[in-house]
Amino acid sequence: MQLMKGMTIVTALAAALSTTALVQAADIDDAIEYRQSAFSVMAWHFGPMGAMAQGKIDYDPEEFARRAEAVNAVAGMPWEGFVEGSYMGDNHGVETDAMAKIADNQDDIQQRVETFTEETATLAEVAQEGDFESSRRAFAAVANSCKGCHDNYRDN
Amino acid sequence: MQLMKGMTIVTALAAALSTTALVQAADIDDAIEYRQSAFSVMAWHFGPMGAMAQGKIDYDPEEFARRAEAVNAVAGMPWEGFVEGSYMGDNHGVETDAMAKIADNQDDIQQRVETFTEETATLAEVAQEGDFESSRRAFAAVANSCKGCHDNYRDN
Repeated sequence: MQLMKGMTIVTALAAALSTTALVQAADIDDAIEYRQSAFSVMAWHFGPMGAMAQGKIDYDPEEFARRAEAVNAVAGMPWEGFVEGSYMGDNHGVETDAMAKIADNQDDIQQRVETFTEETATLAEVAQEGDFESSRRAFAAVANSCKGCHDNYRDN
Repeated sequence: MQLMKGMTIVTALAAALSTTALVQAADIDDAIEYRQSAFSVMAWHFGPMGAMAQGKIDYDPEEFARRAEAVNAVAGMPWEGFVEGSYMGDNHGVETDAMAKIADNQDDIQQRVETFTEETATLAEVAQEGDFESSRRAFAAVANSCKGCHDNYRDN
């Protein structure tokens, strides 16, 4: 009876721990999917802006400004999805290209995010003036910041 | 030689049409993934707000207001992803629960989107005041609008 009781407690504890582990894993999966979703939203708007900046499609000042505003509205959002345990090689359920070294370079990341969000704010502001050349330059600055992080912290 | 030439033109035309079809399919897939991403971003922020509104976690006025602002920033975005050919049963490459009848009820959808974005704006504004009861009410109005569209136009 003593043994039975002991086993029951151990079993209950194991079940509780297992439940906790599952909840945490789900949270991490959600965080990865959240940050990927935020990047996808930005990419959707960034695409046509890039095509305009490169002269592949006609520059439509209103459309460009609307999409610049959308990128800027989301620019501050993905970062809270980069949580401990959510990187490549961590034991979670979602595919990610986010390299593990992100966890060890928080100061650099934070500096990059600050620069990026300042640049998207500038882009949204400049785009409203409707001048192609300055819009193109502000766009290039943002694109360059995207690339900087991707080159350093994304595995592809 | 005449036949060869004719066949070449037909082959080239078929290839061109096939390329066009592929590009369009990719665009539709992108549109579906875009709108789903925008909804995911909102859901990420909506979750903790709901838990606070229901008393499952402590009400944190700053956190609630920050997330309300995020939801409001994205609230106007998903809708451009609901394009022709992107619904359930259409021949595209992405799983979607968006019912085909969306295409036939554009006036109703537009009215619902207007109400929804007005409500998220109110939520973001009210949340800044930091009063639980009015925040909870503004949140419930938004949640109710989500549900209205889901009940009518989402297949689950």
